[in-house]
Amino acid sequence: MSLGEFDIIRKLSAPTPTRSDVLLGIGDDAAVLEVGGGRKLVVAMDTIVEGVHFPAGTAAADIGHRALAVNLSDLAAMGAEPSWMTLSLALPHSDAAWVEGFADGLMHLARAHGVALVGGDTVRGPLAVTIQIAGWVEPDGWLTRAGAHAGDVVFVSGSPGDAAAGLDLLQGKVVAAPERRADVEQLTQRFLRPQPRVQLGRALRTLASAAIDISDGLLTDLDKLCAASGCGARLDVEALPLSPALQALFTADACVQNALAGGDDYDIMFCIPPTCLAQVAARIGAESGGVGGGNSPSYTRIGEIIGARTVECRRAGQPFGIARRGYEHFS
Amino acid sequence: MSLGEFDIIRKLSAPTPTRSDVLLGIGDDAAVLEVGGGRKLVVAMDTIVEGVHFPAGTAAADIGHRALAVNLSDLAAMGAEPSWMTLSLALPHSDAAWVEGFADGLMHLARAHGVALVGGDTVRGPLAVTIQIAGWVEPDGWLTRAGAHAGDVVFVSGSPGDAAAGLDLLQGKVVAAPERRADVEQLTQRFLRPQPRVQLGRALRTLASAAIDISDGLLTDLDKLCAASGCGARLDVEALPLSPALQALFTADACVQNALAGGDDYDIMFCIPPTCLAQVAARIGAESGGVGGGNSPSYTRIGEIIGARTVECRRAGQPFGIARRGYEHFS
Repeated sequence: MSLGEFDIIRKLSAPTPTRSDVLLGIGDDAAVLEVGGGRKLVVAMDTIVEGVHFPAGTAAADIGHRALAVNLSDLAAMGAEPSWMTLSLALPHSDAAWVEGFADGLMHLARAHGVALVGGDTVRGPLAVTIQIAGWVEPDGWLTRAGAHAGDVVFVSGSPGDAAAGLDLLQGKVVAAPERRADVEQLTQRFLRPQPRVQLGRALRTLASAAIDISDGLLTDLDKLCAASGCGARLDVEALPLSPALQALFTADACVQNALAGGDDYDIMFCIPPTCLAQVAARIGAESGGVGGGNSPSYTRIGEIIGARTVECRRAGQPFGIARRGYEHFS
Repeated sequence: MSLGEFDIIRKLSAPTPTRSDVLLGIGDDAAVLEVGGGRKLVVAMDTIVEGVHFPAGTAAADIGHRALAVNLSDLAAMGAEPSWMTLSLALPHSDAAWVEGFADGLMHLARAHGVALVGGDTVRGPLAVTIQIAGWVEPDGWLTRAGAHAGDVVFVSGSPGDAAAGLDLLQGKVVAAPERRADVEQLTQRFLRPQPRVQLGRALRTLASAAIDISDGLLTDLDKLCAASGCGARLDVEALPLSPALQALFTADACVQNALAGGDDYDIMFCIPPTCLAQVAARIGAESGGVGGGNSPSYTRIGEIIGARTVECRRAGQPFGIARRGYEHFS
């Protein structure tokens, strides 16, 4: 019998001992732990494997950046401030230049977020990187996937779809005209150097009713958020903040497919109760409609939470279906 | 240029941001972190890879046990009480029976030590398991590799050499007579199901001047302890607590080789100042000379700390050299 990724996690977590100091366990972007000092400890662990999460031949510095970015993104989705990491690095062979490049990419991002490397392991094996990240939330609240209610407004940060498009370009599945080099560069960088939305998550911590990072594809992750919250969502396809670079290189349909079902964006999708909308605008600025993409803290209203347990997309008021869904290992 | 494991770790850790809440960073069995609640958080991360740390074909339950045991052993060497773990499991393909067996082995040991699984990741890739373990030490002290002084007595728990012998038997490098099945079983179990010395570490927390887990081989790990403490050691080869099973299946020379240079024992080597010897006996019982091996908290005096920065072995008062040294990846 074959198992999906989530079946495996369920099977592993079922017989685990329960502890009263586990405030939030398996099933969200990160766990929240009671450490007795007021603030709560938030931990997440993500692994990236060559040929699965990044193409063979990806530059060492990009791999180092990515390994930390995907973990920081989990903390961002909880509203946590990062502090420490441990690192497990599996390398097929030892190579000083490679290790230096990897350390450069990793530590540049670590310094930007004040994250200290406190331990880990290096082993011989096929190229894979596992990081456990730890961070802090204040005792008055943190973000989870559960908590969205009918009527809440759904927002997404950045410009979803760029990373999946960037991967297509890197892998030569899509070839752009030479004069489009700047657009190609922008999209591939969105795949290779995802910018975790840590500051945005911190700003939303006490305002959003629910949040999730969109690493598996916007629709798949919206499904997860709705399942955890016991609600549904209606998504306005025309509101998706498509980046100019994406639109320059892809057909309108491919843009929407990438935005809804492409993975690897490492942006944050979050829900805001109507009563908090003004506070959000005051704290993180007005909506920017996706313009800026890259590093800006742009965010865009893309839909709303509904009571029915269904996630539906609409375009020009009509139901809109897509074929491709987000990535699940072992599926 | 090729790098050793420790060069890689050094290269990675050099440019890491420093934080005042990191009480002990890279370089010991685990890191110690300030979380503001009195007790200090202790974290370690170890990875095991098929074909590197255990033979292909090892039972899933044994792999699950081992992945946690090697991490618990790191906490034991710090005197910490385990609390939570996160798990990254890389699997070449999804297999329900395998996952169930793995979960059984992992969770049986987790329950024995009260460790909750709070998060993790499952990915497609060559079989490898990474666990980050977290635990607690009281604010009045924890064990490290540094702190041994000339005159301290060196002890080791269990019966070193059994695990390396067990691996030789598992791999068919040594073949035992059929009537020796019980001895074979005992040694292979010492490799497959290492019993981390968590209770021993807890008992030693405020008594030992230094401690380390002997996963890389007793001599290699004694070298590391001495390097961290800025001292040396004199080791009495005749005092090594060789198990009856080891002695039944191996020549006297092979027993000593395994005990000094075999890896994977996951026992604790620790140093006790002469003034604390009586307290140690009172708290954890008298020395047992290695008899019991397996699960007992047996411990044996094997040498002493000296001022000179050298680790020397003696047999019948004469210098004694061995060829084989402990395992280092990438060497």
